[in-house]
Amino acid sequence: VIFLQLSKSKFIELKCIVCGKKYPENAHSLCEACGGILTGEYKLDYPIDLTRRESIWQFREYLPPVDEPNIISMGEGWTPLVKISNFAQKIALSNSFAAHNLLCKMEGQNPSGSFKDRAASLSVSLAKQWKKEGIFLASSGNAAAATASYCARGDVKCLVLLRDDSTYSKLSQIAMYGPNLVRVRGLFKDTASLVSALKATEESLPDWLNGFIWANYNPLLLDGLKTIAYEIVAVSSPNVPTHIFVPTAGGDLIYGLYKGFLELKTLGQINEIPKMIVVQGAHPGPTVDAVEERIENGQENDDTEPTIAGALRASMISDHAVAAVRKTMGFGVKVTNEEILEAHNLVAKVDGIFCEISSSTALAAIAKSVRNGRLNKDDIVCAIATGSGFKDYRPPFNEVSQIPLADSPDSIPHVLEHIFGASA
Amino acid sequence: VIFLQLSKSKFIELKCIVCGKKYPENAHSLCEACGGILTGEYKLDYPIDLTRRESIWQFREYLPPVDEPNIISMGEGWTPLVKISNFAQKIALSNSFAAHNLLCKMEGQNPSGSFKDRAASLSVSLAKQWKKEGIFLASSGNAAAATASYCARGDVKCLVLLRDDSTYSKLSQIAMYGPNLVRVRGLFKDTASLVSALKATEESLPDWLNGFIWANYNPLLLDGLKTIAYEIVAVSSPNVPTHIFVPTAGGDLIYGLYKGFLELKTLGQINEIPKMIVVQGAHPGPTVDAVEERIENGQENDDTEPTIAGALRASMISDHAVAAVRKTMGFGVKVTNEEILEAHNLVAKVDGIFCEISSSTALAAIAKSVRNGRLNKDDIVCAIATGSGFKDYRPPFNEVSQIPLADSPDSIPHVLEHIFGASA
Repeated sequence: VIFLQLSKSKFIELKCIVCGKKYPENAHSLCEACGGILTGEYKLDYPIDLTRRESIWQFREYLPPVDEPNIISMGEGWTPLVKISNFAQKIALSNSFAAHNLLCKMEGQNPSGSFKDRAASLSVSLAKQWKKEGIFLASSGNAAAATASYCARGDVKCLVLLRDDSTYSKLSQIAMYGPNLVRVRGLFKDTASLVSALKATEESLPDWLNGFIWANYNPLLLDGLKTIAYEIVAVSSPNVPTHIFVPTAGGDLIYGLYKGFLELKTLGQINEIPKMIVVQGAHPGPTVDAVEERIENGQENDDTEPTIAGALRASMISDHAVAAVRKTMGFGVKVTNEEILEAHNLVAKVDGIFCEISSSTALAAIAKSVRNGRLNKDDIVCAIATGSGFKDYRPPFNEVSQIPLADSPDSIPHVLEHIFGASA
Repeated sequence: VIFLQLSKSKFIELKCIVCGKKYPENAHSLCEACGGILTGEYKLDYPIDLTRRESIWQFREYLPPVDEPNIISMGEGWTPLVKISNFAQKIALSNSFAAHNLLCKMEGQNPSGSFKDRAASLSVSLAKQWKKEGIFLASSGNAAAATASYCARGDVKCLVLLRDDSTYSKLSQIAMYGPNLVRVRGLFKDTASLVSALKATEESLPDWLNGFIWANYNPLLLDGLKTIAYEIVAVSSPNVPTHIFVPTAGGDLIYGLYKGFLELKTLGQINEIPKMIVVQGAHPGPTVDAVEERIENGQENDDTEPTIAGALRASMISDHAVAAVRKTMGFGVKVTNEEILEAHNLVAKVDGIFCEISSSTALAAIAKSVRNGRLNKDDIVCAIATGSGFKDYRPPFNEVSQIPLADSPDSIPHVLEHIFGASA
């Protein structure tokens, strides 16, 4: 019912994006020679079929090789690409930027509520293909929910390492899928802690796949994420966006998008690769710092309160994100908590879009870029709304009792007169 | 970017489904002659285009007439139709039913998280087409979230009448979109209270549309819901389901599905209309009672605890739901709270599907129908998963502290040995 019979994967090999050294498909590391990330290379010999179908697996020629029975899919991908014209009008300055040219890719409408489903579908399918006993990863958020759900579906064991102070609300979804959970004190304190936690787990569970969704460990998962670029082109062509604003932590999403556009350009299906814009919170924002010559805004440097964009609290510089920005002549933007919440609330109220707070960073960054003159009226701008509003929303009021109450249906007119005035 | 230019609506008129009396497009009532519901009639002269595109509006020839600039869309529709083979295997009895023949239509992946988005997109578009000042409705759940979000996007005022004891969690999403909210004591106590509340509001706000999503008031919205049937056929053909299990309150969803299949049959695009199965909680379950000759299970009659399927707590018999079941020789199933939660937890753990508790009634009803011998191994069964798991999920554990804790990355092997045994 779900899959058409499609041709085989055109995968050739893994290759370092910096020095070009080649690796076999099952490499799970950075380049031994230069430390660059690896990424899958495919034979690009005829156009990618951009006809809309049911999941990312229609693109399987450009995904790593997985035999049909090992594909674990829930219809991930093909999320809506919607205009947010009202938001655009609110943030536009005179002569800045055309309201019909602002788009939002709604990744929260994936099966488990975020873009990570594209990577998790691939990761669990590869675990089956490679006959792994289970998958482990470290995450307290979207990657854990995505991986646990696909593991459940694929009957693959799953172990999630969590931060010790994980919040109840995020864990509730993750636990529904029945993975093994272990809290680790200091898990995300720094890169060294994370690396040693993953290493200790790998040694204990040698037949399991390290499914941490980060190209340093799992370069093939970039190919799951690049499908977002294919879909944006499928729906928007010939008016392909000129700028893509991407909330960034580990950097896989922005590099995956870049890779997808690059493949389409190589095949002649687009003329230009959009500029990739890396977006982070005010603190930490190391990848934006690396991209921009100066700290964007002096006062933000003093802001030591961690960003409310929980999914973006990553302290490492993401080299492949920097590469994606440099190669497309993009830029980087940091946004404060106040700017994030303002965008988050505004887009719900004027365009009916309810996305994760971490996703709203992209919208806040677009507003800021308009103010700073970095966007102009011919630009076609796309925000990647990475997750669903349900993932971490903040209740907009504290007490149900603040809402006006009619004591019975008969007293409704009186209450309405109070709200709408005498005309009601 | 989003819409292809398609031809005009083939709408002819509204017509009573019981006596056939005809009404103009703007009728908002039951049939004056016989009390039957009205439903839109379309000129069915050539096949419906089932090629996958971006929203329900590709079917606009078979939707009520709305001019292009008045269409308010967020890419609603085209939700995944996924196999739930592991769940099927768990509930199968020997010789009962083939695991590859159980499907789930994932309506929770709509923009605001439920199937109501299909109706709300239409309702808000019609409010603009008819130059209404705003929309009001009564709901404390999915219909309110859907209508408020499309109103925000369409810049149409929105008033939501809520039950006085609305829960904080459901209201949080609704309030994000900025509608006016009024609590009404006893709003859903009985049909008379609801009718008088809507009437009082209509008198206070005569230029607003009564957007209550129920065919008794808004028969045209059935045409938004029928698109689910189109999509099921588009993706499953030629193996179209033989049975559709539908969580039912007001009855619009099951009748809308029936209507969609009926149109496809009329046009020769399917050979048979699937049997429509009406699903309700143990209490209240008036529409199942009306459909079945006997109360399904004597002991359930004594169950006066209201169903945990919050979206299905409707005390009225839905005549059009009964008609959909009768015309397709379907049946009705009530499910207890225990059966609902069992199905809800099982499908998450074995198939990675996290749906609204009210949606899990359909899965529980399928399991029960297998046990009762009402399904056999050649049947192709589809459950409508009406909403997202985020809508009302119950945390699967009470305390984060119940999760095993490693004091540092170094102590992970010790913790894992405890969980997985010495092999780890």
